[in-house]
Amino acid sequence: MKYIVSILFLGLSLGQISAQSITLEGAILGQGSVYRPMTYQGIQWIGDSQDKAYFSNYYSEIHRLKPGSKDPEKIITLADIKQSCDDEIAHLWGTEFKDNQTAIIHTKSAYYEYNFEDKKATKILGFPANAENKTLNGNLLAYTLKNNLYLADAGHTKIPVTKFRDKNIVSGQAIARSEFGITGGIFWSPSGKHLAFYQKNEKEVADYPLLDITATPGELKSIKYPMAGQKSENARIGIYNIETKSTIYLKVEGDMEQYLTNFAWGPNEAFVYVAIVNRDQDHMQLVQFNASTGAMNNILFEEKHPKYVEPENPAWFIPGKDDQFIWMSERDGFMHLYLYNTEGKQLKQLTSGKWVVKQILGTDNKNKNVIIETTDESGLNTVARSVNLKSGKSIVISKGEGVHHFDLNPNGIHMIDEYSNVETPGVQRVIDTKGKLIEPLITAKSPFKPGEIGTTELVTLKAGDDGTPLHARMIKPANFDPGKKYPVLVYVYGGPHAQMVTNSWLGGASLWMHYMANKGYIIWTLDNRGSANRGRDFENIIHRQLGTVEMEDQLVGVKFLKAQDYVDDTKMAVHGWSFGGFMTTSLMLRKAGTFKVGVAGGPVTDWKYYEIMYGERYMDRPEQNKEGYADASLLNHADKLEGDLLLIHGTVDDVVVMQHNLSLVKAFVDNGILVDFFPYPNHPHNVRGKDRVHLYKKVLTYIEDKLNH
Amino acid sequence: MKYIVSILFLGLSLGQISAQSITLEGAILGQGSVYRPMTYQGIQWIGDSQDKAYFSNYYSEIHRLKPGSKDPEKIITLADIKQSCDDEIAHLWGTEFKDNQTAIIHTKSAYYEYNFEDKKATKILGFPANAENKTLNGNLLAYTLKNNLYLADAGHTKIPVTKFRDKNIVSGQAIARSEFGITGGIFWSPSGKHLAFYQKNEKEVADYPLLDITATPGELKSIKYPMAGQKSENARIGIYNIETKSTIYLKVEGDMEQYLTNFAWGPNEAFVYVAIVNRDQDHMQLVQFNASTGAMNNILFEEKHPKYVEPENPAWFIPGKDDQFIWMSERDGFMHLYLYNTEGKQLKQLTSGKWVVKQILGTDNKNKNVIIETTDESGLNTVARSVNLKSGKSIVISKGEGVHHFDLNPNGIHMIDEYSNVETPGVQRVIDTKGKLIEPLITAKSPFKPGEIGTTELVTLKAGDDGTPLHARMIKPANFDPGKKYPVLVYVYGGPHAQMVTNSWLGGASLWMHYMANKGYIIWTLDNRGSANRGRDFENIIHRQLGTVEMEDQLVGVKFLKAQDYVDDTKMAVHGWSFGGFMTTSLMLRKAGTFKVGVAGGPVTDWKYYEIMYGERYMDRPEQNKEGYADASLLNHADKLEGDLLLIHGTVDDVVVMQHNLSLVKAFVDNGILVDFFPYPNHPHNVRGKDRVHLYKKVLTYIEDKLNH
Repeated sequence: MKYIVSILFLGLSLGQISAQSITLEGAILGQGSVYRPMTYQGIQWIGDSQDKAYFSNYYSEIHRLKPGSKDPEKIITLADIKQSCDDEIAHLWGTEFKDNQTAIIHTKSAYYEYNFEDKKATKILGFPANAENKTLNGNLLAYTLKNNLYLADAGHTKIPVTKFRDKNIVSGQAIARSEFGITGGIFWSPSGKHLAFYQKNEKEVADYPLLDITATPGELKSIKYPMAGQKSENARIGIYNIETKSTIYLKVEGDMEQYLTNFAWGPNEAFVYVAIVNRDQDHMQLVQFNASTGAMNNILFEEKHPKYVEPENPAWFIPGKDDQFIWMSERDGFMHLYLYNTEGKQLKQLTSGKWVVKQILGTDNKNKNVIIETTDESGLNTVARSVNLKSGKSIVISKGEGVHHFDLNPNGIHMIDEYSNVETPGVQRVIDTKGKLIEPLITAKSPFKPGEIGTTELVTLKAGDDGTPLHARMIKPANFDPGKKYPVLVYVYGGPHAQMVTNSWLGGASLWMHYMANKGYIIWTLDNRGSANRGRDFENIIHRQLGTVEMEDQLVGVKFLKAQDYVDDTKMAVHGWSFGGFMTTSLMLRKAGTFKVGVAGGPVTDWKYYEIMYGERYMDRPEQNKEGYADASLLNHADKLEGDLLLIHGTVDDVVVMQHNLSLVKAFVDNGILVDFFPYPNHPHNVRGKDRVHLYKKVLTYIEDKLNH
Repeated sequence: MKYIVSILFLGLSLGQISAQSITLEGAILGQGSVYRPMTYQGIQWIGDSQDKAYFSNYYSEIHRLKPGSKDPEKIITLADIKQSCDDEIAHLWGTEFKDNQTAIIHTKSAYYEYNFEDKKATKILGFPANAENKTLNGNLLAYTLKNNLYLADAGHTKIPVTKFRDKNIVSGQAIARSEFGITGGIFWSPSGKHLAFYQKNEKEVADYPLLDITATPGELKSIKYPMAGQKSENARIGIYNIETKSTIYLKVEGDMEQYLTNFAWGPNEAFVYVAIVNRDQDHMQLVQFNASTGAMNNILFEEKHPKYVEPENPAWFIPGKDDQFIWMSERDGFMHLYLYNTEGKQLKQLTSGKWVVKQILGTDNKNKNVIIETTDESGLNTVARSVNLKSGKSIVISKGEGVHHFDLNPNGIHMIDEYSNVETPGVQRVIDTKGKLIEPLITAKSPFKPGEIGTTELVTLKAGDDGTPLHARMIKPANFDPGKKYPVLVYVYGGPHAQMVTNSWLGGASLWMHYMANKGYIIWTLDNRGSANRGRDFENIIHRQLGTVEMEDQLVGVKFLKAQDYVDDTKMAVHGWSFGGFMTTSLMLRKAGTFKVGVAGGPVTDWKYYEIMYGERYMDRPEQNKEGYADASLLNHADKLEGDLLLIHGTVDDVVVMQHNLSLVKAFVDNGILVDFFPYPNHPHNVRGKDRVHLYKKVLTYIEDKLNH
């Protein structure tokens, strides 16, 4: 969400970007604004009605679309809100609908109920302007300030839930560095009478120093950073009773460094459910705890895998059935649904097939079918399916090949279905949960004039060793001439949990790729094994050997490119960020000579410097996998560089700390090898905002200069 | 000394560097070894005899030269010492002579008296191997461990003098960041019965974080770094009585942040003398303290200057006269000697003239004349002078134009005179204090074959505004052809307390300049106003406007170069380090278009990030000189860059902290301007050792690439 907001504000000052020629500035800053296919932005249901709302005019207005109508009405404006609320508000982003006439709007330090029929705002509660992790539930708000957790109600803005002076004890925030699907640390109970929260004790976790250069003198901002093989955080889960103002903690047994993941409230609040994963991440137990006493009640079931298990979705209780829940698991090789009862008995495998469940959207109006979003077998497209809870029979209810996003109406009947594919910039329509088209909403035209950007082609190759299909995307310049020879820029990510190539508008590409293509380049990206949405075995082949299989697959792409008459294979460059920086540098060193130029941003250079949760899942601990760590460490391959390599890092990167890159630079210096480096001062793991234009000016200028040197 | 030792060890592995062609590696690593003119290395007197000793075979041997003899004898070898001493020793560097048959040798953790006539070593005392600031006096050693001061004697290796647990209180080390001529914090009394020491309390001084990337995870190494205008250290001076084991502290009055400089013991130990300078550095008082009680006894005299005063030489007592001392002052515009009595009465100005006293070497054998080293009027050469204490008449006693180094024999009669000039690689001879040549020792040949390096010419230009002579050095390639056009590399330092151009061998140049010259470049360096050895007004014109006059003078050099037929003025580059990095970047931004390429290492980019002592002397405090700071800040000129600029920084630079460079990079990013940067991981302010080859490969490759781009 942060990312989208930043694009939003940038958009405000983009009046000067013309659509007539794609500049680098336009490509970087305009992808979410002037070059966004003109569908209804942020479309959502208004309550359980059939009315839809969407944002307009840079999030300063919300319009309503009634069923069948093509004439939207302006129902909420920032100007009206500013008149009704006694607080600062910059935009309407984040507005949700409580019911058919009430929106929940938050300002800088308060939440309001806004009745948009009579344009009247009623303050629900206030909170400190620096509150974080705000989680509203009815008339109560939970939030964090520094390391503690607080509540706000109509009368009070700051009711402490925790009061730890020790900064190492952090409550109400995400734990485990947001792995295992953890996105926050606040869990309201269904009735709102209890508040469960994560708490981590980071006392044993090493500090990593970051420097804020904007202070005089430069100021130390240390972070807790648990590196692979070192001491980790200790987590627990508290449950706060709103009425008694008392907190109990779950009585979890076992290793203090194990992971408490996928917290879920049972429907009647008697029990809570936690997926406990051991530090080695090869064993998961779904444990039921007594929510009143914190006592462990039952281990419902467990999962093991010799490589790793990775639960990312909490138990999902079937509406209306307090004793049944759905568990999502990759245990049969693909992410599928399993129906369990609260005794831990598996009632049924609900879905199966060589496709991947991505999320549960809800149930239909009779709670007989569960509506889910999944991939298709290729992994390039997504669909909605309706799965009958009784028979397990599932049918695809969405139409149109491509990547879909769905919004299921609380009425369990209607769904907004929004999709695009390589040929289709964007379509929005209303369907029902049986798959019937209710109403077409909009079909966006391309935001580009003919010839303004090049072509996007999806290509499927086969992995060299086992013939696994690998999807790739090729962008050719608008004025592509097959009789000419083009240099190639390979953009790579290659790490787990990500997919670069999809059958969506632009094929998932960033517009800077089209800017570069139009300068006379082929831009290529291939999702190697290890990438997301292709099933467990496609992903976990990377275990204990990060980079190895990934590079082999990338070379399949390179081989394909070299075989094309229009490719100048003496001028090939590679670029990537984060895991893609690791891949880029790995390719430049371990497959030296393949690429003439590489640009690696925020690269992991040695997995021993990366974090415990992600790092140990894929690589085990350093002492458990010495050879794997040594092979993957770019520090050990620095002597092999051929060609030009530019390394880039944000100086306050708290994800891949700059030690990675500086250690690699040191290895090059130790070996007497010239290499280039550029820091982005006070930028974290990614260079965002307007400085991203500078970044890509730097990256692409370097590639052009060095390819032609 | 550290610098020389590092060159020494590098020399050990340089067997492979051939003198037949000067490579970059040879130029960087060989200047102190294979390319050193072959004079007697580290020549010194043996006691007060007329025998001389020098190091040989990479400091593994000491040879003796008897008067008139051309056959040196090997008197000390590392092998012999290793047999006699029960401790590690790596080289003989640092060996001194106690008398005509005894050398003082220190091993890793002990001092020995070594009788080289009968090859017998007697241990004086031992000390911890990690002792720092070791200062031996007879049979006692003072040294520091972390923040405390200790003594060692024959029976004890660790007798505490101070016992402060608070790490902010640092005893026995240099204070005031080694400004004001301060090089250490331990001062033995003449009798050895008392030990005076500096103590600083750094509690109020801000921490600046440095990161050691060689630890996992990267480890914080904070330093105390007092930035201009901020809180400074508080100094005091302790006097420890060896017999009573008690310490008194001088009762200094006034501002706690004033500077206690130039400590001196009076001859009979009744009094000590301290030059106290206010934080504004425009007022100095020479204060006499009672050495037994610490009470202030008398303010002997004071000096003021509207810009700054900068005492750098402690009171120097005339041997045999307990009540008279020499004070060195720039008060008449040049550094000269003044004779005072201990009542503070000025008896006489001993020297005057448009030349600069550099140091007092001692007195002649009758204590009637004081022997000093000074510059000549040009500032390019140095001479020895004998100054009659009674008449004040001074005569030059050295012969041979060039830069001399003298070693006055304790007998007050003989001096070793070692000198070189642009034509003369090195001459050593013995003269007497009346100026008579006693004995020629050696005349070194050039270590280069004819044509192997280019030519060095000294040029004198005139400053644009007042015609002040400015000295410069031009290096032309060995195969220079006046009919051709050459690109130019200007190497600049430009800051106070330094002189780049002298009439010495190679004119003071580094050999990498000759390597680069031979690639077809003119290498140029000019000492602008502000440089050392030209008198007070030449230097202090830079006050409150660092960079401004310095750049004007550099442009005089550029104008001269452009007027030469053999100069290609479309291809001019500039490079410098530290203040020279500031100058390089200032020229690239504030005189944009003059140079096509710049490479700035460890640059100051805004004086508010530089240290109090040096920074406030030249710039005053930021709030006192807002305009001056703003003009000099390169952050304010980032938008003006033309051409290519490479910025370089050692990541643990504790002199010019990396915040300077990262802030400048940020200013470039903010302005959307491309610039280059390279870090030297875990290097401090200078890149030394073998990585210096990488550094100059980087610097010179960049210049070549970008000049020809």
